[in-house]
Amino acid sequence: MPSQAILKKIAALKLSKYRQKYGQFTVEGRKGVDEVIHSRYKVHSILATSEFAEKNSVPHGTEIIPEIQMKQISQFATAPGILALAETLNYNVSNLNDNAPITLCLDGISDPGNLGTIIRTADWFGINQVVLSTDCTDFYNAKTLSSTMGSFTRCVFVYTDLAGFLKDKNSVGCFLSGTDVNQFKPKSPIFLVVGSESHGIRDSIAKIIREKITIPGYGKAESLNAGIAAGIVMEKIARFLAG
Amino acid sequence: MPSQAILKKIAALKLSKYRQKYGQFTVEGRKGVDEVIHSRYKVHSILATSEFAEKNSVPHGTEIIPEIQMKQISQFATAPGILALAETLNYNVSNLNDNAPITLCLDGISDPGNLGTIIRTADWFGINQVVLSTDCTDFYNAKTLSSTMGSFTRCVFVYTDLAGFLKDKNSVGCFLSGTDVNQFKPKSPIFLVVGSESHGIRDSIAKIIREKITIPGYGKAESLNAGIAAGIVMEKIARFLAG
Repeated sequence: MPSQAILKKIAALKLSKYRQKYGQFTVEGRKGVDEVIHSRYKVHSILATSEFAEKNSVPHGTEIIPEIQMKQISQFATAPGILALAETLNYNVSNLNDNAPITLCLDGISDPGNLGTIIRTADWFGINQVVLSTDCTDFYNAKTLSSTMGSFTRCVFVYTDLAGFLKDKNSVGCFLSGTDVNQFKPKSPIFLVVGSESHGIRDSIAKIIREKITIPGYGKAESLNAGIAAGIVMEKIARFLAG
Repeated sequence: MPSQAILKKIAALKLSKYRQKYGQFTVEGRKGVDEVIHSRYKVHSILATSEFAEKNSVPHGTEIIPEIQMKQISQFATAPGILALAETLNYNVSNLNDNAPITLCLDGISDPGNLGTIIRTADWFGINQVVLSTDCTDFYNAKTLSSTMGSFTRCVFVYTDLAGFLKDKNSVGCFLSGTDVNQFKPKSPIFLVVGSESHGIRDSIAKIIREKITIPGYGKAESLNAGIAAGIVMEKIARFLAG
């Protein structure tokens, strides 16, 4: 049974400032917990409710806590029933692989669910290096991690000044007008920039992007959702580079 | 100024049972309101806060209400500040166009935001006919409408027994294994089936789908998000059929 002090600390990790202060985060749900214990992350403890443990096999060493305590420490309205406490990994630009075929660059993605879904999609297409503008939402937000469906464990990510980072790089971004993405012939290593849900790619970044591409539409919608556009473009670039 | 009775009724429309009972729904936010007043929907009234009306141009006839009342009738934690009250449209299978090149068929999509994003993506690719299994979330849910970014106004949609509907039809569905979507040569009219976020396409529907396709991955994620997969496949089928 974890101590009250530990439970109080876990509850504090709901806020990003405490995740930064303690260098720890929680991930909830079977998929996320399963993946984090088999990853490069250092896991401190795994907590589950007896209800969860009765219905599912739980990892060795899982501590059982009452449902009411799980409710208090969970970051979800409906607690998934299993939670892992792990140490954050802090990457910086020197950790990036300069020869990674595709690096995903995210400009102002503010919705945790969108960020998680984009990281999951990237992982599907073999893209595991992500550079985020400093105003993107927190990678270790529980909703972000949950939406990645475990893909966060394979992601090397850096928050930095995106405009500075992209200078002199082979960058491509998705806009409402530009080269048809189907005619675009990417060269590796490439840096794919995805803009925010509401404002797209900001001007200061748009002006340094080397290649502007677009996804032709056949209907009357004004734009595509950022995550959907990112998915369509990642599929095309990854497939082209895979030959 | 709308009467208390009208405001009470609008607040009741937060629940789908009252939307069905009254045959009315609300749409919030500038984009949704702008689109609904220029659509086939019959709009009864438009309400905005003075704060919204000062910062934005509002449609002729907009009634100004206090912010506290907008808070009470809004379906969002942060009320967008403008709301339209309109009559629902009730389509049935006889309203569907048998010759529509692509009909989107949704099996058990339960998240309103996902449903809205899928409808928006479909509209981008010129797909405006959607058939939903009866357990899909409500089309007129405020979050669904908002996520469509106005595309709901162009969508003809029917809730029905999806397995029965698809019988003897030229159907295709996205699975974890099947024909590579890039090798797939669709023939119009085609019925594209998208499965639920957590369970994919249910077995009773999977077994009657004529063509099973898949989106090849190059990484380690187990699956793609339903909306992302739908977006990638819609783009490919729409582009193929557009020649």
